[in-house]
Amino acid sequence: MIFTSDNAAPAPPEVMEALLRANAGYARSYGADDLTAEVQDRIRRIFAAPEAIVHLVPTGTAANALALASFCAPWSAVFCHTHAHIAEDECGAPEFFSHGAKLVLVPGAHGKMQPDALAQALARTGTGGVHGVQRGMLSLTNVTEAGTVYTATETAALTALARAQGLPCHLDGARFANALIATGAAPADLTWRAGIDVLSFGGTKNGLLGVEAVVFFHPEKAWEFELRRKRAGHLVSKSRYLAAQMAAMLTDERWLHWASQANAMAARLAQGLQAAGVTMAHPVQGNILFPQWHLGTSTRLRAAGAMFYDMPAPEGQEGARLVTSWCTSPAEVDAFLSLFTG
Amino acid sequence: MIFTSDNAAPAPPEVMEALLRANAGYARSYGADDLTAEVQDRIRRIFAAPEAIVHLVPTGTAANALALASFCAPWSAVFCHTHAHIAEDECGAPEFFSHGAKLVLVPGAHGKMQPDALAQALARTGTGGVHGVQRGMLSLTNVTEAGTVYTATETAALTALARAQGLPCHLDGARFANALIATGAAPADLTWRAGIDVLSFGGTKNGLLGVEAVVFFHPEKAWEFELRRKRAGHLVSKSRYLAAQMAAMLTDERWLHWASQANAMAARLAQGLQAAGVTMAHPVQGNILFPQWHLGTSTRLRAAGAMFYDMPAPEGQEGARLVTSWCTSPAEVDAFLSLFTG
Amino acid sequence: MIFTSDNAAPAPPEVMEALLRANAGYARSYGADDLTAEVQDRIRRIFAAPEAIVHLVPTGTAANALALASFCAPWSAVFCHTHAHIAEDECGAPEFFSHGAKLVLVPGAHGKMQPDALAQALARTGTGGVHGVQRGMLSLTNVTEAGTVYTATETAALTALARAQGLPCHLDGARFANALIATGAAPADLTWRAGIDVLSFGGTKNGLLGVEAVVFFHPEKAWEFELRRKRAGHLVSKSRYLAAQMAAMLTDERWLHWASQANAMAARLAQGLQAAGVTMAHPVQGNILFPQWHLGTSTRLRAAGAMFYDMPAPEGQEGARLVTSWCTSPAEVDAFLSLFTG
Amino acid sequence: MIFTSDNAAPAPPEVMEALLRANAGYARSYGADDLTAEVQDRIRRIFAAPEAIVHLVPTGTAANALALASFCAPWSAVFCHTHAHIAEDECGAPEFFSHGAKLVLVPGAHGKMQPDALAQALARTGTGGVHGVQRGMLSLTNVTEAGTVYTATETAALTALARAQGLPCHLDGARFANALIATGAAPADLTWRAGIDVLSFGGTKNGLLGVEAVVFFHPEKAWEFELRRKRAGHLVSKSRYLAAQMAAMLTDERWLHWASQANAMAARLAQGLQAAGVTMAHPVQGNILFPQWHLGTSTRLRAAGAMFYDMPAPEGQEGARLVTSWCTSPAEVDAFLSLFTG
Repeated sequence: MIFTSDNAAPAPPEVMEALLRANAGYARSYGADDLTAEVQDRIRRIFAAPEAIVHLVPTGTAANALALASFCAPWSAVFCHTHAHIAEDECGAPEFFSHGAKLVLVPGAHGKMQPDALAQALARTGTGGVHGVQRGMLSLTNVTEAGTVYTATETAALTALARAQGLPCHLDGARFANALIATGAAPADLTWRAGIDVLSFGGTKNGLLGVEAVVFFHPEKAWEFELRRKRAGHLVSKSRYLAAQMAAMLTDERWLHWASQANAMAARLAQGLQAAGVTMAHPVQGNILFPQWHLGTSTRLRAAGAMFYDMPAPEGQEGARLVTSWCTSPAEVDAFLSLFTG
Repeated sequence: MIFTSDNAAPAPPEVMEALLRANAGYARSYGADDLTAEVQDRIRRIFAAPEAIVHLVPTGTAANALALASFCAPWSAVFCHTHAHIAEDECGAPEFFSHGAKLVLVPGAHGKMQPDALAQALARTGTGGVHGVQRGMLSLTNVTEAGTVYTATETAALTALARAQGLPCHLDGARFANALIATGAAPADLTWRAGIDVLSFGGTKNGLLGVEAVVFFHPEKAWEFELRRKRAGHLVSKSRYLAAQMAAMLTDERWLHWASQANAMAARLAQGLQAAGVTMAHPVQGNILFPQWHLGTSTRLRAAGAMFYDMPAPEGQEGARLVTSWCTSPAEVDAFLSLFTG
Repeated sequence: MIFTSDNAAPAPPEVMEALLRANAGYARSYGADDLTAEVQDRIRRIFAAPEAIVHLVPTGTAANALALASFCAPWSAVFCHTHAHIAEDECGAPEFFSHGAKLVLVPGAHGKMQPDALAQALARTGTGGVHGVQRGMLSLTNVTEAGTVYTATETAALTALARAQGLPCHLDGARFANALIATGAAPADLTWRAGIDVLSFGGTKNGLLGVEAVVFFHPEKAWEFELRRKRAGHLVSKSRYLAAQMAAMLTDERWLHWASQANAMAARLAQGLQAAGVTMAHPVQGNILFPQWHLGTSTRLRAAGAMFYDMPAPEGQEGARLVTSWCTSPAEVDAFLSLFTG
Repeated sequence: MIFTSDNAAPAPPEVMEALLRANAGYARSYGADDLTAEVQDRIRRIFAAPEAIVHLVPTGTAANALALASFCAPWSAVFCHTHAHIAEDECGAPEFFSHGAKLVLVPGAHGKMQPDALAQALARTGTGGVHGVQRGMLSLTNVTEAGTVYTATETAALTALARAQGLPCHLDGARFANALIATGAAPADLTWRAGIDVLSFGGTKNGLLGVEAVVFFHPEKAWEFELRRKRAGHLVSKSRYLAAQMAAMLTDERWLHWASQANAMAARLAQGLQAAGVTMAHPVQGNILFPQWHLGTSTRLRAAGAMFYDMPAPEGQEGARLVTSWCTSPAEVDAFLSLFTG
């Protein structure tokens, strides 16, 4: 009953086997190995983007911050949701990598930016000539930090506003596979066809030991990205071990199966909890839940062995965050749910 | 006959086995797992430094740049060898992480800084009051970029000059195990007892998939380091996989055995080459060689399957860099040497 | 009828005379001249702060950004009003000088931060451990960007919340003299006795050609500030010309007289406009007004020779910003007002 | 007998008169005033560069660092002389403004970079692919820090090497007028016709209170420069007072007359000293001298009222730096020389 985070789960056996296979003999370093080339090519095919530039990095914060810095000047405004991971959970990495860009926070219920709120933020920013920061970039997260999902249409509506101002668009896809499952969209539909220029394509939360891909759908920034990555200490010498994990995930549609399992377990949790009278702070669309239950419940659940994070909740209630993963089992879910019906 | 780099070699089987063992069940993320605590403790014991702060990061550039930034102001001068890795091979990572510190290059034969050259650089820097950058830090590399080694006494002579000015001292120990083998010194003798305040303790070049430890021998900078690491995207969520590698390396003195093998193979190469009339640009003390041979030799060796990097050489000669690793075998060395005696 | 800004006005003759007097013979450069020492001493006496460190810089943005950077780490959160000058009108200078600190915007009517809003922002920030930016500093503006004023008591209530978290407090006093006049407070009461650690003490908007003082009420940051100032290109070689202006302003309480005149003219404008049925978006307490009048009025006023900036206004109205200065005359005000009563 | 620096001298009366004239009535702020436009136009005409972008800033460090940052990425190498002002006397301002660019020091006798030394530095840099910083820019100083001068031909020889690598070229012309006098070249010949892309055009050392112009001979970087200037706190609100000084200097060729006087007085000093047996560390071509005299001389001269800075000198001698200015008089020079012949 461990629902603290998808990054608390182990890696699927196929990933470990791929690592072992990759460990044979010598390999060129710094990304010049065959496995890295293979995984880059595979990602290009998955996204129907033959010109895309793909690079691997060890963490999601690195993926996001490097992607943003590649497009933003130090005096840029990055439009993101009030509770975006880049705003709240990266200790200022976007500011560090971009040398001081400013995050302009756009509010919206359930972790989703609404077009009118974005339009207002865009209209308010960059109107002071040289005295204010300049409109720089849009950054969305899908699955959002609230566990909700943007459809391709919703994504396109937001990117259209940004692109009308000439702004490139970033997607933090730490849980991109879960968003695909939730929406049923094709990878291209939820990214470049919906106006996304650069994607942080997550692997770590979907079962890998620690690999994310940065996917540039237009190749202009390729060399600059490589310099920024090296300079930030994110060019890994033994790239084959990153590539092997990612390749294993992308083989036989495993990434979709794993995300599908995580989403299904979240839905099962949500249904069971709602049947037990628990409310959800946000719609459950991916693999994250924000239940709100009676006071005292959290203590009781933890006493029974459940693990999860506390969240703010309305007066008289307790809030929690539950995250499922590829390895969450129906039995684990049901054991947790049984604590509500006992 | 692959001598391009120690990071082209595979990982020893014990490392892979440790990874597989670490992959059981859930684990706390972001360094709060048991394996990370265990490896931190183990490193403290190896260095006889019970108060040391130990953190894991994925790359050597991250280790170096974060260590330097923890001690340097943006207006600091970092004294390092002209050919230091931080000066030539990190694409400006020290400047990035420190927000603009200046590397003051100290020359010296065979990759080693000499006390008088350091003394001159120290005397020349920071004398202009507010108009110039201020003396900030000393950074040494051991094994040096020229494949030579500083003894504990030599290290102490350099750090003493820096410490007399109140400067902290960093050691880039990407190949620290090889330096230990070469000098026969104890880990503490070659670091904090010789005046080193913070060590980049290498794992990747000694067989790991990609892990370095930053060891602060004084705990003052601990929290700042953690913030810098997170902000730089180098706080890995699934820390257990970094820790497992490092723990495997430190078990049963494997790290010393592996480095010992690499050094021995370098010595065997050097002896064989010298016997064949090849000269060495620098003394061979660790696991790197810089042979200089007749024109045309490199092409001939490569045609026979050898791999290595070219280096500048005196007129009429060709230079190369050969690096051995834990998995370089006598057979591989001898096959290479046979190309000179056929 | 020029009400665009107090920085459109000429300098009082006493300032020009002081410049001429200062231009006699040689003087030591970079702040080592006698005039600079004299003005530093004078400011210390005005603020009853004998240990204060005082430095002159050419612009208000430099004063603010250097003051903030002296106290903030790159991962700090600076709490400021949503419409603070540092947030909206400095093109990201605080982020640049601090290497990436994050401005946390605290809302509040009429340009004033309310204690409960600040308390909420403080409570929300820095609770994520290493994953989020850390609470760093409070920055207030007095006179505020909305032309209102914080009393000493109001200032102290806000700084008390910050200081309870160990945070230093900055005051952007670009129009500090106007705030003194409006509140009747003593300089010390509106600054260090109210919890302010560092003050940007404005001269330029109060009649000088271009000089601001940064006043550190505690001397710990003195040397770091000097290095930051030099590094930012704000250490002026011929400091006597900055000092002469500031000294002229502080002689015979001129700075208070000039601000008093500006405030009085703003009050006269406000009374006249309100008598003509014009509403004010914010209370008029300093030398800035935000009138809202009937559609078409702005065009009519400009046709008659008036100059001012447009501001957003409620549906069916037009908004404007009027700023008075030391040289605004009753005749100029009355000519403007006559355009409403003709 | 004040020879400490040209920035210790007062401003010529024409400059003060221009300031007084500029102080009439209201003026638009932030560079939108008529005087600023006039001085921008005048500089374009002086340099025969009708498309040049001209901006005023308060200090030479700001001019240099903003000019460099406009062309350099954070991972750029800036090639400059070992003793360049940007390397030794700006406390790391180039690194700060460029977010970490690296100064590559090119040696050369008498403060002058030699083409072969530059060629070597260029050849050595940027050859490591993504692992090293990239060739970014050339920066020369004329008059050099050693008081010598580059001719147009010498300048062009250096910029040609840089331009062959696609690098833009900066000229630190803090004493540009003195270089013009020394070489007899036209402003265009010593700048854009000799391959210079951006010039720091000095006013402060040639008699102004504190103004430098940054002249971009190609307009591509214009808007970026303005944002960088604002963000750095170097956009002065009351620009008319900067422009008035610069306009006064450029009227009636005063800037050339003033520099001519300074150079002539330096030559007179040099001749007199050499006649008295004093040697010069560097040829005297502008308005700076580096005499080396007998031990004890400096103390004797100071006792007689002379002021200057000490410099390193060969064993058995004392070194000094003497700087003349527009207001150095023959009488002052002769009084100083008489101390050698008494």
